[in-house]
Amino acid sequence: MVNEQPKRTDIGTLGEFGLIDRVTQNFPSYHKSTVMGVGDDAAVIQAGEEQLVVTSDMLLEGIHFDLAYVPLEHLGYKSVAVNVSDIAAMNAVPKQITVNLAISNRFSVEAVEALYRGIRYACDSYKVDLVGGDTTSSASGLVISVTAMGTADAELITRRNTAQKNDIVCVTGDLGGAYLGLQVLAREKEVFLSNPNQQPELDKYNYVVKRQLRPEARMDLVYELRDQQVVPTAMIDISDGLASEIFHLSKQSGVGFRIYEENLPIDQQTYETAVEFHLSPITCALNGGEDFELLFTIRQGDYEKIKNQADIHSIGYAQSLDQGLQLATKAGQLVDIQAQGWSHFTSGEESS
Amino acid sequence: MVNEQPKRTDIGTLGEFGLIDRVTQNFPSYHKSTVMGVGDDAAVIQAGEEQLVVTSDMLLEGIHFDLAYVPLEHLGYKSVAVNVSDIAAMNAVPKQITVNLAISNRFSVEAVEALYRGIRYACDSYKVDLVGGDTTSSASGLVISVTAMGTADAELITRRNTAQKNDIVCVTGDLGGAYLGLQVLAREKEVFLSNPNQQPELDKYNYVVKRQLRPEARMDLVYELRDQQVVPTAMIDISDGLASEIFHLSKQSGVGFRIYEENLPIDQQTYETAVEFHLSPITCALNGGEDFELLFTIRQGDYEKIKNQADIHSIGYAQSLDQGLQLATKAGQLVDIQAQGWSHFTSGEESS
Repeated sequence: MVNEQPKRTDIGTLGEFGLIDRVTQNFPSYHKSTVMGVGDDAAVIQAGEEQLVVTSDMLLEGIHFDLAYVPLEHLGYKSVAVNVSDIAAMNAVPKQITVNLAISNRFSVEAVEALYRGIRYACDSYKVDLVGGDTTSSASGLVISVTAMGTADAELITRRNTAQKNDIVCVTGDLGGAYLGLQVLAREKEVFLSNPNQQPELDKYNYVVKRQLRPEARMDLVYELRDQQVVPTAMIDISDGLASEIFHLSKQSGVGFRIYEENLPIDQQTYETAVEFHLSPITCALNGGEDFELLFTIRQGDYEKIKNQADIHSIGYAQSLDQGLQLATKAGQLVDIQAQGWSHFTSGEESS
Repeated sequence: MVNEQPKRTDIGTLGEFGLIDRVTQNFPSYHKSTVMGVGDDAAVIQAGEEQLVVTSDMLLEGIHFDLAYVPLEHLGYKSVAVNVSDIAAMNAVPKQITVNLAISNRFSVEAVEALYRGIRYACDSYKVDLVGGDTTSSASGLVISVTAMGTADAELITRRNTAQKNDIVCVTGDLGGAYLGLQVLAREKEVFLSNPNQQPELDKYNYVVKRQLRPEARMDLVYELRDQQVVPTAMIDISDGLASEIFHLSKQSGVGFRIYEENLPIDQQTYETAVEFHLSPITCALNGGEDFELLFTIRQGDYEKIKNQADIHSIGYAQSLDQGLQLATKAGQLVDIQAQGWSHFTSGEESS
């Protein structure tokens, strides 16, 4: 009856990050308290002396998770952690969250309680207060939409567009594990479906499976950087893969990057699982999503302060934009880094 | 494989508002900036001198709207308006919103643009800045989750739990129209499905249809009350129907209410449409949802300041709790008001 469109452009044609840019252009700004809107890990709002950072992410059944192998408690935890990770990427301290939940009638009260138990664990772990949200029914799958708010002094907030040439590029933790955890879980699901009596063998994959099911926001390293009095020149969290995130930093800061393959942090179990799946561990580290580690740049003068921190790895440096995004391989070659992302459309999750 | 629950309690057994209460009980509060959490139209967070109010609502295709008769532009507008309405119910001024969107591949770029055009109109209308959000794909229907933030001085913020005995109860605008608009649209859809060549006849229902498709948050009356220097003693927006909302005010404030049937504001078209559908106009006014008018209580001494305001109607008064919730009919009888709500589970939308 309505909504017939004379012209029809496929969403895929706009590319992975084109849609949000296109539909939000020309939106006005009415309030001087709006310091920064669309385009970073979180929005920034002036709130008295401090600045408030706000981020919001939605997880959908069948797109972001499969309840066949994702325990609801872990899902609740993860839905908070991924939002806290965006707050961490702004170098801010998370304070409050709201949770919107849509569930179908097939869910029991106990199932919702399990989900909220996970949310509660995350609230305890990251010291955030659950302050609101609504619960409604869903005609199909489970949907969780979380909004997180945090605060920081203006001079501590780290954006994506402020990396400078010669800055050192750092990454926290290790990469590629969450992606391989997903491969393991998908394989075990297939085994289970073909033979329901066979128990899944997950013990030898415990690390990568945990990386997928119950990721942590790296608030510990935000606090560590504060202790060391290091303010990154730019920061982003790795939700769509290192290559995709470094592409954002490059595009928004107007610098190129050179990354050294030998410096990419890859856990032993991640490495072995990749080999077992006939995947390149380096490709998994570059393009595997959902590790929720932090990618940031620091001034060279700050390197001494973080070089002994076991969970922070310097992986390269910022160069001029015309030198592009390069991976220096162990064999000594320079190859261009492709930002494949880790997407949910044909190619197409847009994330803030 | 996982998520098997030893005990299974149907969600319906907890009643309409029991689920959120149950799963969020015992959540700790870590931050003194958390002034008020779950349980009102919006959360309240201290932000410098002012207080920040935050609310979040999710609209799902097949539950909250049917794209067969809801134009995307109106849907975009409504998704913002319903959240601004929660800010209005706190007597605060809306400032920023974030929008999370999940869409399936069947949506075109032009469809998403139409949706955002409506969001933009609402941003212009209510003077709010779009500051973030993410867009992802959906395996099934369209999902929109909006978070709205506003500010107010602490002494202006109106809660649900502060109505006092003898306060006058007021309602803005008129009631029942949005519910009857939905009935009209649903009937026209049936007509269209059985005979696609027949054009829908909506002209004589233009007011009630607009109430359903493109509701307004009553910020105009929030500003009017400020101009008159009236701070309501309690306030809530009418999303689930007057009876349901007055039940919330009663429960949370610990007072009863007497409402006069003859004072309930019902538009002529609403009245006539109700009669045509063999529905009681009074029942529609009491239990029809989605009018997004404001229900509030004021001190008797403030009555003079608002009595000439055409869009504010005094409909009764607060009495002691043991006198209950009563409707004084035109025939002079006192009948108990049942809080039926307007729900999306068997019975069961939980709203903040």
